[in-house]
Amino acid sequence: MQKKFDLTLYLVLDPVLCGGIAGLVETTRIAVANGVTTVQLRSEQPFDRKDWYNAALALKKVLSTTPVPLLINDQVDIAMAVQADGVHVGQSDLPVEVVRQLIGSEKIVGLSVSNQAQMQAVPWSQIDYLGIGPIFPTSSKGDAAPVLGVQQLQQLVCTKHRPAVAIGGINGGNVESVLHTGVEGVAVISAICGQPDVGQATQQLLRKISHARAGN
Amino acid sequence: MQKKFDLTLYLVLDPVLCGGIAGLVETTRIAVANGVTTVQLRSEQPFDRKDWYNAALALKKVLSTTPVPLLINDQVDIAMAVQADGVHVGQSDLPVEVVRQLIGSEKIVGLSVSNQAQMQAVPWSQIDYLGIGPIFPTSSKGDAAPVLGVQQLQQLVCTKHRPAVAIGGINGGNVESVLHTGVEGVAVISAICGQPDVGQATQQLLRKISHARAGN
Repeated sequence: MQKKFDLTLYLVLDPVLCGGIAGLVETTRIAVANGVTTVQLRSEQPFDRKDWYNAALALKKVLSTTPVPLLINDQVDIAMAVQADGVHVGQSDLPVEVVRQLIGSEKIVGLSVSNQAQMQAVPWSQIDYLGIGPIFPTSSKGDAAPVLGVQQLQQLVCTKHRPAVAIGGINGGNVESVLHTGVEGVAVISAICGQPDVGQATQQLLRKISHARAGN
Repeated sequence: MQKKFDLTLYLVLDPVLCGGIAGLVETTRIAVANGVTTVQLRSEQPFDRKDWYNAALALKKVLSTTPVPLLINDQVDIAMAVQADGVHVGQSDLPVEVVRQLIGSEKIVGLSVSNQAQMQAVPWSQIDYLGIGPIFPTSSKGDAAPVLGVQQLQQLVCTKHRPAVAIGGINGGNVESVLHTGVEGVAVISAICGQPDVGQATQQLLRKISHARAGN
């Protein structure tokens, strides 16, 4: 059965910012205890695949007693091996149709889009949610597409047929403007990973999100 | 059903030496027509995963009408997606037990070993063949382990419980000394990939192999 997912505050784990695999696990544990609703392990850095596998296994263990789903970026085999809840892919990864066939209908599949052309090409029936970004400049992703800004995000949100999470440079200072576009949630990396107090950073983001949702 | 495999002359494809995906496919077509017995797509370079997937699909098509198996290095999901004949993993990739569980008992699984300690840790029941190397210095693999030489290869061959292919710097000039250790075959990269005449290079290697096997 597909794990229910809530995109409200979606944590994308960066192993370097978190200080290695032990840091990933500890960041996840604290962030989830403080209200993060979805966790993705992203494989930007060229670590050994064995290390990614071990990181995914450790995260699966931490999350197994929580309602928070574990999504694996790109590496479908690792997602399958650790029985993660789903996979997130970008435009240069395996095609979503292929991912869906490998991982089955019961898992969560997310796809990144960065512009209107990609939006129009989304195979909606194959995916469960959309990642839209980068919204603001970001240093967490080396090969990021051009920045969209809130106005273009708004336009993309209007044409989507699945829930969406906005990503890229989102923090406590801009999260409200992002949520006003109607996205279901925000994904953050450096606003949580590597913060001196991960629990407090998570709570602050959630307070801003509640504030935005209350329409203030 | 597992495709029969013959390690005699095992081609490891290097996309850069072959000049891109079209070059990979053309090299494979000619090498197989001239007697290569096994083909592996190796993912050393940081290409997009979509490109690897497309390369694997194209290779699968070329090899589907031949008895030559297609093995995919490391990326089990791509192997599964294109219905390749198997997977080859190194010591820093997904553990072979995990690979076997993902890909099933009917596929070929190969494992690289570079020393006696790794040899002693091989889970023999999980694998179909062994890659032993590097035998000689090589420029085709950036993170290669220390060179073994023919004498250490000989010692490793004596303790193996599956067929083995030797790899690393093997060419027409040294292939006979390698085969005299008792390995079932040799894997080559630059001795075929990027050669001005791939067909002739393949035939020359096979003549040397026949010569060594005839005990001359």
